[in-house]
Amino acid sequence: MIEIGKKAKEASVSLALADTEKKNRALLLAADTLERETEYLLRENGEDVRTASSTLSSAFIDRLTLTPARIRSMADGLRQVASLPDPVGRILRDTSRADGLRIVKKAVPLGVIGVIFEARPNVSADSAALCIKSGNAVILRGGKEAIRSNTAAVSILRSALSKAGLPEDCVQLIQDTTRKSASDLMHLDGYIDVLIPRGGPGLINAVKKEATVPVIETGAGTCHTYIAPSADPDMAVKIVHNAKTNRPSVCNALECLLVHRDIAGSILPLIEEKLTPEGVIFRADTEAATILKKAEPAEESDWGKEYDDLILAVKVVSSLDEAIGHIGRFGTHHSDAIITEVPEEAERFMNEVDSAAVYWNASTRFTDGGEFGMGAEIGISTQKLHARGPLGLEQLCSEKYYIYGKGNIR
Amino acid sequence: MIEIGKKAKEASVSLALADTEKKNRALLLAADTLERETEYLLRENGEDVRTASSTLSSAFIDRLTLTPARIRSMADGLRQVASLPDPVGRILRDTSRADGLRIVKKAVPLGVIGVIFEARPNVSADSAALCIKSGNAVILRGGKEAIRSNTAAVSILRSALSKAGLPEDCVQLIQDTTRKSASDLMHLDGYIDVLIPRGGPGLINAVKKEATVPVIETGAGTCHTYIAPSADPDMAVKIVHNAKTNRPSVCNALECLLVHRDIAGSILPLIEEKLTPEGVIFRADTEAATILKKAEPAEESDWGKEYDDLILAVKVVSSLDEAIGHIGRFGTHHSDAIITEVPEEAERFMNEVDSAAVYWNASTRFTDGGEFGMGAEIGISTQKLHARGPLGLEQLCSEKYYIYGKGNIR
Repeated sequence: MIEIGKKAKEASVSLALADTEKKNRALLLAADTLERETEYLLRENGEDVRTASSTLSSAFIDRLTLTPARIRSMADGLRQVASLPDPVGRILRDTSRADGLRIVKKAVPLGVIGVIFEARPNVSADSAALCIKSGNAVILRGGKEAIRSNTAAVSILRSALSKAGLPEDCVQLIQDTTRKSASDLMHLDGYIDVLIPRGGPGLINAVKKEATVPVIETGAGTCHTYIAPSADPDMAVKIVHNAKTNRPSVCNALECLLVHRDIAGSILPLIEEKLTPEGVIFRADTEAATILKKAEPAEESDWGKEYDDLILAVKVVSSLDEAIGHIGRFGTHHSDAIITEVPEEAERFMNEVDSAAVYWNASTRFTDGGEFGMGAEIGISTQKLHARGPLGLEQLCSEKYYIYGKGNIR
Repeated sequence: MIEIGKKAKEASVSLALADTEKKNRALLLAADTLERETEYLLRENGEDVRTASSTLSSAFIDRLTLTPARIRSMADGLRQVASLPDPVGRILRDTSRADGLRIVKKAVPLGVIGVIFEARPNVSADSAALCIKSGNAVILRGGKEAIRSNTAAVSILRSALSKAGLPEDCVQLIQDTTRKSASDLMHLDGYIDVLIPRGGPGLINAVKKEATVPVIETGAGTCHTYIAPSADPDMAVKIVHNAKTNRPSVCNALECLLVHRDIAGSILPLIEEKLTPEGVIFRADTEAATILKKAEPAEESDWGKEYDDLILAVKVVSSLDEAIGHIGRFGTHHSDAIITEVPEEAERFMNEVDSAAVYWNASTRFTDGGEFGMGAEIGISTQKLHARGPLGLEQLCSEKYYIYGKGNIR
């Protein structure tokens, strides 16, 4: 593993200084080759699926499986990253002191990024593209179920790097998919500048607990929406419908609806009427259950749960404070919304809910690098350090002070 | 410890929303009280010194000891922080989408900051002031030798907070100074948003290794200066003299001088002539030792060592590459300088040396929040995540997306 770390560190020095054009050439070459090698990728992926299929859920197999359309979308992802502005070298601050000393703060790559992910083979190309464009070498450690697919994708990326005149070790895939290799990566101090786990809460917590290298937590998303008494009913129904059903499997989807007692009786039937035909199942607290026509009883474990599915927890609350308190206790600091016509209420909610994104009268589904106008993202940070919210190219950079003197002393 | 965490979290909510004037009032009140209570502080500190003195070094006792002048300087530190602009609420980005959704990225406090420090009692007031001004609650865990001094200073801060109408739990001092309390603090997930160790490399490494809460590493400073063949001799001597002798005990002081072979014979005698009268002792490699009149032989362990003392390691190198390689291997990513008249050489050095601050023809002593125009600092970050270099008020903030809709859905 140290050998891999050393190679990455070495490659990262060249990549950090590479011009934009070279990096883009590598990405565009890789995109074309991915499409041209569709057969090869499908064959390797087929082997993965065949080996895995006996033991795993159908949702898992779906995430693991590549199709020609998915390969095209991987390639388009690389092209999109190539089209984004280069984040490296931006001047963040430029001051000259009275004594003539000039202090320039510039954006620089982080160096070497580690990515631990599960069985979605598109993550390898996707993460590598963002790392390359932001001047960072990357060490990928994917799940064992996707090893052949990842190996194929990474070999295409490496050959594109080499053709573009960049070190192929800018992208490395760890072939050993045992628990030990993940653990070794988490302890690669001195070689890894940041480790990003991409996957479920189990993976994220394990990395957070064990890693001695710096980590950015991403993705855990138990999003709440609170409907205040003054909410516009049409707007509330529309937002809840969108946030829950537009794409239930993603982290910015709504998981728990909090409704003020004064509006619960009128709004919950409207929501039920709109969401039931979409297949949404309600898990309701006692009070909400008396209003809804059909609901499963919510258990304590339903609060804070990320279903990633067509299930909606519903709770009646008696005040804004109770709503804020519930989110503070059970939320994951991702995205939470209030629907109200009272600005003071919205302001309190937005100030006091401690999440990466807080919404007033909008769907939580907007928390996304693309929607925010940042281009592609490597994940949504739910921590407060370094970057919060979507992690785009700028967030994959560090900063560095360049100081120009003429013999200046203190 | 969880009780302390809960209180801090609660206090942090009020503090995050407190207006600038209230925070400044608390700081100014605390400054006045510190000065008025000089007698009391000296008495408590005297107890600390009396209890500690039998077993510890004189340098340690010096750092532990308060004097009226040091108390005045603590108070002035609080006043300076009060005079700085409030970093909370700054608009970092403000965009409106075509669909009318407005996305505002604002600076917000991190929340709760933990500070683990050793026996310098001024660190408690100093850290607390920066945390209060940046809207963060702070949990302080100081060394056992300074417990009475810290308790006295913190009680003054807490009473000032309370008089200014802010929760006194914005500043808490852990009374238990056993190893276990430090360890508990490192694992206070969900309550501590960032932990900052302030002290020697032993403390920093222990925290880095053990903590499960996010950490910012600060302070390890083995700074290098490389003299290239084209260097202006007068400038080189002046810069080396300043960087080594201006204040040898701090992290931005010069520790290791690298000299190109082609200039070593002429420049080292000039440096020796200037630095020897200041009491500097040279630890030289074989080649440098043949040029210097008087030098101790450097051992392998001298490379990368932070002396914090009037000792200078000296090594003759044969190329810019060798200098960059040496710094990469033994440096601490803090501050490193090149002295040269060749811009291309300076550019390569500054790009390839992976440190928070890279200097061309200036003394490394400038790496400091005050010198950089940022006001006071809580330390110098030598990591790449979150913030690099001096950690001032802005660096003690996180960010948050405030999103204003009118029923927007995706």
